[in-house]
Amino acid sequence: MPASNSFGSLFRITTFGESHGAALGVVIDGMPSGIAIDMEKIAQAMQERQGKTNPFTTPRKEEDLVELLSGVYEGVSTGAPIALLIKNKNQHKQAYSPIKNLLRPGHANFTWQKKYGVFDPYGGGRASARETACRCAAGAIAKMVLETYGIQVFAFLDQLGKVKSHFPQNLPVYPLLEYASIRQKSKLCTIDPLFEEKAWLELEKIKQEQDSLGGTVTCLTSPLPVGLGEPIYEKLQSKIAGALFSIPACKGVEFGSGFAISEQKGSESNDLFTLHKGDFAMQTNHAGGTLGGISNGAALIVRSAFKPTSSIKKSLPTYTFDKKEAMLELPAESRHDVAICLRAPYVVEAMVAITLVDLLLLSGEKKCTF
Amino acid sequence: MPASNSFGSLFRITTFGESHGAALGVVIDGMPSGIAIDMEKIAQAMQERQGKTNPFTTPRKEEDLVELLSGVYEGVSTGAPIALLIKNKNQHKQAYSPIKNLLRPGHANFTWQKKYGVFDPYGGGRASARETACRCAAGAIAKMVLETYGIQVFAFLDQLGKVKSHFPQNLPVYPLLEYASIRQKSKLCTIDPLFEEKAWLELEKIKQEQDSLGGTVTCLTSPLPVGLGEPIYEKLQSKIAGALFSIPACKGVEFGSGFAISEQKGSESNDLFTLHKGDFAMQTNHAGGTLGGISNGAALIVRSAFKPTSSIKKSLPTYTFDKKEAMLELPAESRHDVAICLRAPYVVEAMVAITLVDLLLLSGEKKCTF
Amino acid sequence: MPASNSFGSLFRITTFGESHGAALGVVIDGMPSGIAIDMEKIAQAMQERQGKTNPFTTPRKEEDLVELLSGVYEGVSTGAPIALLIKNKNQHKQAYSPIKNLLRPGHANFTWQKKYGVFDPYGGGRASARETACRCAAGAIAKMVLETYGIQVFAFLDQLGKVKSHFPQNLPVYPLLEYASIRQKSKLCTIDPLFEEKAWLELEKIKQEQDSLGGTVTCLTSPLPVGLGEPIYEKLQSKIAGALFSIPACKGVEFGSGFAISEQKGSESNDLFTLHKGDFAMQTNHAGGTLGGISNGAALIVRSAFKPTSSIKKSLPTYTFDKKEAMLELPAESRHDVAICLRAPYVVEAMVAITLVDLLLLSGEKKCTF
Amino acid sequence: MPASNSFGSLFRITTFGESHGAALGVVIDGMPSGIAIDMEKIAQAMQERQGKTNPFTTPRKEEDLVELLSGVYEGVSTGAPIALLIKNKNQHKQAYSPIKNLLRPGHANFTWQKKYGVFDPYGGGRASARETACRCAAGAIAKMVLETYGIQVFAFLDQLGKVKSHFPQNLPVYPLLEYASIRQKSKLCTIDPLFEEKAWLELEKIKQEQDSLGGTVTCLTSPLPVGLGEPIYEKLQSKIAGALFSIPACKGVEFGSGFAISEQKGSESNDLFTLHKGDFAMQTNHAGGTLGGISNGAALIVRSAFKPTSSIKKSLPTYTFDKKEAMLELPAESRHDVAICLRAPYVVEAMVAITLVDLLLLSGEKKCTF
Repeated sequence: MPASNSFGSLFRITTFGESHGAALGVVIDGMPSGIAIDMEKIAQAMQERQGKTNPFTTPRKEEDLVELLSGVYEGVSTGAPIALLIKNKNQHKQAYSPIKNLLRPGHANFTWQKKYGVFDPYGGGRASARETACRCAAGAIAKMVLETYGIQVFAFLDQLGKVKSHFPQNLPVYPLLEYASIRQKSKLCTIDPLFEEKAWLELEKIKQEQDSLGGTVTCLTSPLPVGLGEPIYEKLQSKIAGALFSIPACKGVEFGSGFAISEQKGSESNDLFTLHKGDFAMQTNHAGGTLGGISNGAALIVRSAFKPTSSIKKSLPTYTFDKKEAMLELPAESRHDVAICLRAPYVVEAMVAITLVDLLLLSGEKKCTF
Repeated sequence: MPASNSFGSLFRITTFGESHGAALGVVIDGMPSGIAIDMEKIAQAMQERQGKTNPFTTPRKEEDLVELLSGVYEGVSTGAPIALLIKNKNQHKQAYSPIKNLLRPGHANFTWQKKYGVFDPYGGGRASARETACRCAAGAIAKMVLETYGIQVFAFLDQLGKVKSHFPQNLPVYPLLEYASIRQKSKLCTIDPLFEEKAWLELEKIKQEQDSLGGTVTCLTSPLPVGLGEPIYEKLQSKIAGALFSIPACKGVEFGSGFAISEQKGSESNDLFTLHKGDFAMQTNHAGGTLGGISNGAALIVRSAFKPTSSIKKSLPTYTFDKKEAMLELPAESRHDVAICLRAPYVVEAMVAITLVDLLLLSGEKKCTF
Repeated sequence: MPASNSFGSLFRITTFGESHGAALGVVIDGMPSGIAIDMEKIAQAMQERQGKTNPFTTPRKEEDLVELLSGVYEGVSTGAPIALLIKNKNQHKQAYSPIKNLLRPGHANFTWQKKYGVFDPYGGGRASARETACRCAAGAIAKMVLETYGIQVFAFLDQLGKVKSHFPQNLPVYPLLEYASIRQKSKLCTIDPLFEEKAWLELEKIKQEQDSLGGTVTCLTSPLPVGLGEPIYEKLQSKIAGALFSIPACKGVEFGSGFAISEQKGSESNDLFTLHKGDFAMQTNHAGGTLGGISNGAALIVRSAFKPTSSIKKSLPTYTFDKKEAMLELPAESRHDVAICLRAPYVVEAMVAITLVDLLLLSGEKKCTF
Repeated sequence: MPASNSFGSLFRITTFGESHGAALGVVIDGMPSGIAIDMEKIAQAMQERQGKTNPFTTPRKEEDLVELLSGVYEGVSTGAPIALLIKNKNQHKQAYSPIKNLLRPGHANFTWQKKYGVFDPYGGGRASARETACRCAAGAIAKMVLETYGIQVFAFLDQLGKVKSHFPQNLPVYPLLEYASIRQKSKLCTIDPLFEEKAWLELEKIKQEQDSLGGTVTCLTSPLPVGLGEPIYEKLQSKIAGALFSIPACKGVEFGSGFAISEQKGSESNDLFTLHKGDFAMQTNHAGGTLGGISNGAALIVRSAFKPTSSIKKSLPTYTFDKKEAMLELPAESRHDVAICLRAPYVVEAMVAITLVDLLLLSGEKKCTF
C-alpha cells in the first residue's frame, strides 16, 4: 500500500478525498516562490472541467468552490505548500446502496476491493473521476507558473467514437490563441465546428441507446525551450505518458505521428532542421517535440485515447462479491457522463502543465523576464 | 542535470556507460534475496538482443560478455546490489569524426549538446541504443524473480511498416509457451510465419533503398495476480508506459484495445466477469489486464510503436553546429539497424519484467511456493 | 524550491499551513488499509502537545480540533490518503507588525527571506513550530498502525538546562507502561519526579529572567522486530535522525550510549547476545537497538538535544532587513515557550512512530495477529 | 528489500560490491556536466582513506586503483553517469571460515542474516566498512564540483577515547587551509599536535590490550552560500545527519554547540548578526551554520561519534547461529583497525561533500565564476 497519491518530483502534487466524502483537496509542494496566484483562474478551471455546456456530462452539480488554505502571502506564492480544498456538497450516498455488493464491469471496485480488502462504494470513493477536480485546480496553478516561462498548454477533443476532427498535423508551431478562441465557443471542447456537429449527433444517439462512447484528445504546447526531459529513464515522453495514463479511462498515448510513424520510412519521419531567427528550429514535427527524450524547441504534440464511460444505464450481467450471478442496473439517481472524453481535455491539460513545471524546475530552466 | 539513469522504486536499476566507452553496466538495487542467479540466462538474453539471426540489424559485433561483480553468494542473491559489467570491445571511434559537428535529423545529438553543453559523439555516446544491453541484462535477472511468482513476459514484432501480423486480440489468457516456441524459430522475432515472410521482403526492399522502417511490438504476460499497480498516480499503465517510452524510438503505447477502444461503445468495451476455478476472471480483455490502474487477474497486453531508425545511409540536408548548411552522409563504417523495431521486443520484455518486479515488491505480493 | 514538506517513502506525510493562516493540515499517503481510526486518540495527542499542564508553554490557546476529511470508511482506513485539517482560530497577525522588518537572532526569518525572496512574518509563517501540530496528528495515526504490530513509542524530557534526570541506561527492554503512568502525572513530561521538581525551579527562574532554556529528550520503543532499516544508506539510524533533525530547534541526536560510546573500549561497548524464550536477544543495549543499521530486537534508544527557544523577551541588538541597526523587542502580545523542549517529547514520539511505520512497510514486516 | 544502496536526490550515488568480492564500485548519477575530472585527486583520496601513516589501521593492503568507466569526454563530465570501479586484489576468504557460523557481538552478521536469510561472511561481505572506499571515490568527485562553487569541506579526529583535542569552538569562519596543512603532517588525521601525542599513546596501549577504541570527528566547511537545505523535512541538518549515520559505527551527530546547547540560555545560544562587506554575517556560530534548516552563510560545523571497532582480538562469549554457546576468537589472519575513527574523517568529508552538492543542485545555486 505505497504512497501513490502524489505526482512529480520537484513540483509535486498530493491529492486526497473521496467522491462523496467531506472534501477533496490537493497540496502542491515545491511551489516556486514569487508567483502571483489568481483564484479567479482556478474557479474558471473548475467551471470548464464540469462541462456544463452540454447535456452529455454528469448532471451532478457541484459548486466546486476552491478554498486556498496556505502558501500565499499578499497574493504571491511563498515557496511553502499551497493547499486547496473543495468541499463536497451534493452527496447521494444512498444511491449506491443497491449496487454496493456487485462487481461493476469496466469499473475499479473489483480490483480495489481485492487489493485493499475494503472499498468505499459511494460514487466510486477514491477511484472516482471526481479526483480529477484536484488535478484541474493544481493544473491552474501550474499554468500560472508556466506563464512566467511564456508557455501555453492546450488540449481538445479530436475524435469521438468513429468521428474524427481535422486540423494540421505535425506542425512545429501551432496557433494556440486562435484555437483557444474557437474552443471557447465550442460546447464539446473541440476546434473543428464541422466535427463538433457530427459528434453532437453521435452523442444524442448514444444517449438514447443508454450506452456510452470513447474518444481521443490532442494536447499541444507552445514551442518548449530546448532541454526539458531527463535521459535515460525520465524522458519527456516517459513523464508525460506516466501523467496521462494516470487519468481514469486513458488507454493509449502517442507523440507526434505516434503509431502512424511505424508505417513511415526513416527518410519521411526524420524532422529536418532549419534556422529561425538565428536559432535552430524544426521544419516538421513528426517527433512531437522531442529528440532523445529531450524537448527540441518545437511544440509538444501528444494524443491520448479514452475508453467509453464504463457506467452505462444498460443493464449488464455480473456477480455479487460472494459469487452469485446478478444483473447490474445502475440506480436512476446515479449520475454519469455519456462520454468521459468530453471532460478529458481539461484534465489532460492540467497533467501536462503540472509535468512541464516539474521538468522546468528539474532542468534549472530560468523564467522569462518579459 | 538530475539523476535519471535509474528506473524503479523498490527494485531499481541504474545504468551507465557510453557506446564506445570502456564499458557499460547496470546496478540492480533492491534485489530480493534468495533468488538463484543463472548467468547462462543472462548470456542468452544478450545473444537474443543482438538479433544476429537476420541481416537487417547492425553489423557491429560485440561479444557482450556479462561479468557479475557483486550481490551473489553461493549462486544465490543476498539482497545486496547486483552489478553487471559489459566491456566494449569493438570500438570505431574514428568512424564518427567526419560527422561530429553535424546536427543529425531524428537523432539526440542536437538536444544533448544544447542541454549539457558537451556531447560524446562516438556512436551517440550515452544516447546510443547500446544502453539497452544493460536493460536486457537486468531484465534477465528480473525474469528470474518473476519466475518465482510464476509470471512470464513475452514480446514480439507485430507490425513492420504497413505489414501487420495476425494473432487473437484481447484474450484474458495467452498460450505463451506455444508463442515462445514459434518465436524461437523466427528470424524477425515474430509469432506469425506468414507475416514474417512479408516483413522479410519489406526489409530487403528498404535496405536496398538505403532507408529504414518503423514497426510495432506487442507484449503479453501470463495472468498477473490481482492487485499490482498503485492508484492514483502510479497506476500499472503509468509505470509500464513510463518504462516503454524510455526505450529509444518509442512513439506510442497502448493497452488492450488501446486507441481502437475510443471507437467502441461502453457496452462493447466493458469486459464482463466470469468464474474460473472458483475465482473471478475476465471473459474478454479489452482493458489489457487492468481496472482502475490495478491488475485484474488477466494477461497484461501492451503495444508500443517504434519509429524508423533515424540513422540512414541516404544523405540528408542539415547544418553544422555553427549554423552552416551541410549534407549528412553517414560514414561507411558507421553501423545501424535497418529497423530498430526488430530488436525492440527484447528490450520491451526487459522493461516490462523490471517494472513488474518493482510493482510486486511494492504490493507486498508473496512469491509462489511451488 | 523542491518539494520538502513530505516525509517518508511508503508511509508518507505531507504537511501544509502557516502559523496564522486559515488552516494547517496533513495528508497521510500510503496508509495501510483495515486500520481502525480512533479520532479520540488524535484529539488527545493534540492536547498533550499543547502542554497546558504548566505555565511555561505558550499562552496561545488553540482548540486544535482535528477534522478528518478522507481515507476512512465505516471507521476503518481504506488505503486512500487520510487528510486531517486543523483550522487556526486564535490569530494575532497584528502582533507581528512591529518586528516584521527585523532580523531575529536564532530565528528562521533571515534564511527564509534570502532563500525565497518573500516571508510570511505572522508567527513565523510556515517556519513556525506550529507545524508540529500536524506531525502529532499524523503521529497519532502512525501509533494506531504500530499497535497492530505490538509496538509502543515513548519519549520524555530527560534534561533541562544543566539539570539531569535519572533512569536506567542501555536496557534491551524498558517498562514503558510503567513510565507512561508516571509521565501522565508529570507536568513537564518527565519520568523522574525528583528531576521534575528541580526542573520546575529552573523554569521559574528563567521565566523571571525573561530568558529561555534548552533541554534533551529520550525516546524509547518496545523491542522492535529484527530487520527494520535498510542498509547501506537508509539505516534505521539515518532515517530516525533525519526525522528528529527536521524538528525545529533540534541540534543533536545520539543512539544508545551515543557520544559516550566514543570513550569506551570495544570490549565494553559490544553488546553480547543471550537466549530469551528460544530466540537471540541482547544482554545490554549500548548500540541503542541497531546493528549494521538494522534493528536487532532490542528497544530503540534515541536521545535528542533542543536549543533554548530563540524568541525571548529580553531585547537583542540586531538589524533591519535594509541593514540599519535596531533593537529586537518582542511585542507583549507575541507568545512563546520558555523552553520548547517541554513540548518536544510529543513531537519526537510522533516522528519516531511515523518513521517506524515506514520502515515496517518497507521491510514487508507482517502485522501482529493477537 | 528496498533499494537503499543509493544516496542523494539530484546528485545521487549508488554503490555496490562486497569486501572480498570481485570488485566494488560507485555510479554517480546527476553529475553536472562541464566539470574537469582529475583522476589524480581520486587516487589521493583512496590513499588518505587507507590511513597507512600509522600502525593502528588494518594491515590489509589494497592498491585501491580506481578505474573510470563512463561519463567523461575529453577530461570533462558530460552529465552522463560516472562509474568508478575498484577491483579487490587482496582477498582472504578462507580467514573467515572458522567464524562463519558465529554471531559476532557488535557486528552486522546477526541482523543481516535475519533480514535477508543469507549472509556473505567474507570480511562482512556488503556490511564491511570496505564499502566506504566507494564513498571516498565519489566524495573526491563531489569535491571537484564544490570547488567550482568555492566550497571546501574538512574533517579531523577531535577526540580519541577520553582524550580531547583543542580548537576554537563556534566560529563563523575557520582557517581551513591552515588546518589542512597541519593535518597533512599528522599521522592520525588531527589538527592538534599535543592531542595527537596523547592519542598515539592511548592507541599503543589499547593495541597491546587487544582491544579497540572509539572517537569523534569534527567536520567544518567554508562559509556556505545562504539558502542550502529544504524546509520542512529536508533541512540541511536532516540531510547531513542522514548521511553521517549511514557511515558504519556512527552513534551520534551534533551541529554547532550540539548537546551542549541544551545547557545554555537563549540569550547565550542565539547567534547575533553583524555586517561583513555589506552583507549580513554571523557574530558567533552556536547554531553550526543553519537557521530554520537552511544554511545561514556561516561555516557548517558538525561533529560525529564513532564506537570502538567491534572486531577485537580479545575473545568474546557468543553463540552459533544454531544457538549453541561458543567463544568468538578472530582468526590471526583477519585484519581490523584498532580504532575505526582514525579513518572516519575521510569518509565524513566525502559524505558531507556529496550531500552539499545535492543541496546545491536542489537549491539551483549557481557556480562561482572566478
